Amino acid sequence: MIQPTAVAMNSKPDGQQSKYQLSKETAGLRSTDLLPHNLSGQAPTREFLLKVVDILVDYINDVNNRDEKVLHFKHPEEMLRLLKLDIPDEGVPLQNLIDDCSLTLKHQVKTGHPRFFNQLSCGLDIVSMAGEWLTATANTNMFTYEIAPVFILMENVVLTKMREIIGWKGGDSIFAPGGSISNMYAFLAARHKMFPGYKEQGLHSIKGQLVMYTSNQSHYSVKSCASVCGLGTDNCVDVPSDERGRMIPSELERLILERKSKGHIPFFVTATAGTTVLGAFDPINEIADICEKYKMWLHIDAAWGGGLLLSRKYRHPRLDGIERANSVTWNPHKLMGTLLQCSTIHFRENGLLISCNQMSAEYLFMQDKLYDIQYDTGDKVIQCGRHNDVFKLWLQWRAKGNEGFEKHMDHLMELSEYMVEKIKASPDKYYLILEPEMVNVSFWYVPKRLRNIPHSPKRAESLGQITPVLKGKMMEVGTLMVGYQPLNELPNFFRNIISSAAVTKEDVDFLLSELDRLGQDL
Amino acid sequence: MIQPTAVAMNSKPDGQQSKYQLSKETAGLRSTDLLPHNLSGQAPTREFLLKVVDILVDYINDVNNRDEKVLHFKHPEEMLRLLKLDIPDEGVPLQNLIDDCSLTLKHQVKTGHPRFFNQLSCGLDIVSMAGEWLTATANTNMFTYEIAPVFILMENVVLTKMREIIGWKGGDSIFAPGGSISNMYAFLAARHKMFPGYKEQGLHSIKGQLVMYTSNQSHYSVKSCASVCGLGTDNCVDVPSDERGRMIPSELERLILERKSKGHIPFFVTATAGTTVLGAFDPINEIADICEKYKMWLHIDAAWGGGLLLSRKYRHPRLDGIERANSVTWNPHKLMGTLLQCSTIHFRENGLLISCNQMSAEYLFMQDKLYDIQYDTGDKVIQCGRHNDVFKLWLQWRAKGNEGFEKHMDHLMELSEYMVEKIKASPDKYYLILEPEMVNVSFWYVPKRLRNIPHSPKRAESLGQITPVLKGKMMEVGTLMVGYQPLNELPNFFRNIISSAAVTKEDVDFLLSELDRLGQDL
Repeated sequence: MIQPTAVAMNSKPDGQQSKYQLSKETAGLRSTDLLPHNLSGQAPTREFLLKVVDILVDYINDVNNRDEKVLHFKHPEEMLRLLKLDIPDEGVPLQNLIDDCSLTLKHQVKTGHPRFFNQLSCGLDIVSMAGEWLTATANTNMFTYEIAPVFILMENVVLTKMREIIGWKGGDSIFAPGGSISNMYAFLAARHKMFPGYKEQGLHSIKGQLVMYTSNQSHYSVKSCASVCGLGTDNCVDVPSDERGRMIPSELERLILERKSKGHIPFFVTATAGTTVLGAFDPINEIADICEKYKMWLHIDAAWGGGLLLSRKYRHPRLDGIERANSVTWNPHKLMGTLLQCSTIHFRENGLLISCNQMSAEYLFMQDKLYDIQYDTGDKVIQCGRHNDVFKLWLQWRAKGNEGFEKHMDHLMELSEYMVEKIKASPDKYYLILEPEMVNVSFWYVPKRLRNIPHSPKRAESLGQITPVLKGKMMEVGTLMVGYQPLNELPNFFRNIISSAAVTKEDVDFLLSELDRLGQDL
Repeated sequence: MIQPTAVAMNSKPDGQQSKYQLSKETAGLRSTDLLPHNLSGQAPTREFLLKVVDILVDYINDVNNRDEKVLHFKHPEEMLRLLKLDIPDEGVPLQNLIDDCSLTLKHQVKTGHPRFFNQLSCGLDIVSMAGEWLTATANTNMFTYEIAPVFILMENVVLTKMREIIGWKGGDSIFAPGGSISNMYAFLAARHKMFPGYKEQGLHSIKGQLVMYTSNQSHYSVKSCASVCGLGTDNCVDVPSDERGRMIPSELERLILERKSKGHIPFFVTATAGTTVLGAFDPINEIADICEKYKMWLHIDAAWGGGLLLSRKYRHPRLDGIERANSVTWNPHKLMGTLLQCSTIHFRENGLLISCNQMSAEYLFMQDKLYDIQYDTGDKVIQCGRHNDVFKLWLQWRAKGNEGFEKHMDHLMELSEYMVEKIKASPDKYYLILEPEMVNVSFWYVPKRLRNIPHSPKRAESLGQITPVLKGKMMEVGTLMVGYQPLNELPNFFRNIISSAAVTKEDVDFLLSELDRLGQDL
């Protein structure tokens, strides 16, 4: 059994030894020679895992090495040729698995690189990552205290803390697989609270069309929720936003009255705290006044901006009034840098999650258990099995403390302010679209040929055409990544995100000069 | 900066050194002394991670050690006292984090232990776990080829393979966070395909009440879907099942006609391939005939039983006809032993996922990208951010090959057959509820005082009362874990699950004798 095979020793097509070479004894073993299949497999199991960790630690060093590229771009067809993705009939030896791991990371985009500004979720927090390794090894499901006692208690501690930060005593919360599902939980709880017959009878329990509202800058999951839950996207009303991307409260009220006059039933408003593109904050207090006036549920989608609740300096005025909401989505996997996935949804009122979602599966949620069953969460959720998303956040919070998270938020905001200043100092090269409220910096890069021309819709159009071309060059060179998109009337512009703890002022300087290097002759 | 603090060196309350002691130089450091905060932090970063891995490897050895208990049961209040779950204002030193990790695993239930028979998801596959560690380190989101090129291509390879195994050429699939969401995807695609106006207009696009069907043994997520998506649970019709837990096709047809006579619109049937409690397989071909006759969508919830598709011996007759379905849920995190979470949903027809779920967020899914955008998956899903669930499955499949998975399935089924034979050989001590079709073995344990009494509803009631008491003893002793539940008329009975590769015949022997040891005097 313990005999290396020829395949393993020559796992590299060119016959060279792998950079990550297992011992002769282990290289040719199969996964069935490891635990749990082979109880004397402790040593090769350890060796195999440590070799994987070698690869991962080297990758972490590469991620933090500014001389390394963010990516080595390949088109899909070429990438398919470089990788060996086929699934074999017979399992491959351990050395091949090691090489698979190494090859995978070689071609993966380094989302934790200090010059990756492309996504709301960036960075690679080491402690949170260690937490996720442990989570994998614990490999448990989150439905009952019975099988996840420690993690269930941790959820209680962390979620209670988050509700306190929002400004609530009591209430209820749950982790969900992403902000879109969190937003859906809010919708479901609102519908259930206001129309309790809906759960059993559906639409026939009410007379009239339910209507929900959100700004035209909100995350697309809000509209998706209208589709999934049966309202139809036509009944998710887009409320216009102002020039800074914030919902206009008077427009909200006008649109509520418009639907009411048709006999419809407006019942649910999603205000966004940190919009996806511009990072705008809807005015919560004014929207809350309207919700109170018309007895509507107020949900705050703070998936993106929620992290700023941790900063005494920056939570005001952006998140003022959040405690008046009925529910809040807040994704630690965004601004807080927790590993993917980590999203939470919070409710001011306790008891709604269970009454809304309970299906009382008797095989899981028996009433005659050994312990206090109030800790079982499974019957509160629309999933059954649920991934353990708490440990990596809890461990990270232990490591940073409240102070550490506050510093992290302040640092990200200060860097973004620095970037805005830099852009404003070179108005010939960079066109700032607006003064941001958050770490989203929206701008056009201006190549030489468009520099001495007054700005006009026509010039904006030209800048919008340059943006994807420059993004393409950026990816081919691989030195940085910044996202872009159009927005309403605005043609394609860059949206730079600083949400990674790895970013420094020097990286911001690099970003701007690299754009200039790549783009000045476009 | 590199100075250990008193706290760290005395992180154990009793002043003793931790079992997992970092070097003096590293113990007192904070997370901000590691990468990416401190670029000279490579050495302590590596040391910290390797120390975490030490804890994890020791835990893996414990999990596979039959002299170790499955759990050390503590009630929530006691557990809260033993753990230090509080979130501090100031972050704790690295040594405390190490101790946190160790303490967490000490009190966690060992779901990979060979005597953990409690849940459909059991076991701890080392290769899949290594894959999940890498996934954490890669920390990427699955919405575009741009940021997850390797993993997006892997999804294509693995999902295409799974559809081939189902029996389809072409089609489409996606990974979802659990079987409940997978089942919801099927419902949404069906509703969209059959009533394309629903997405925009909701219920007003159709005249009449939509109705869905599933057996009274199906997973509760099917009913939950009716609630979430706006039908109401009253319009999710429970179809009676036979004495072995299989849906009765003639009853399905009768109930379809009953609703049709009221002017309702039956459109969706979920057949279960491997029910949660009994492991029953609904007769797919007969149900498919009915769906064809009434032009209804056939969804197969093979979240649990899908793994048997990999066994030539056991897929027939259980999954015969599955290729006639319109959609199939199949969770590798169950029978295949892939780490949580790993669930897939497959469609026979291509294009439905995108047309159903697309919200066309321009900031993510631009049409003017550098590469072929058909690889971007984000616009197909109701989540936005999506966890990378493919790598751990792909690596595991590389390790096992198709043959390895087939052997795994055959082994689990043979062990279950062995257990059934053992139970039948001692009818005085164990009462077999039914001959299972899968790895669910349902039985009562019979204590001495009830052994020489003819079986009757009254005796069943007594056995049902004993079951939770015996489960309580089992958890307090900590030597094994088996689930129980009532089902329809049957009072509480044990449902033993063999889905972990760690289980051997000796473990089955132990299970039965341990139940006898703990329960004979009840």
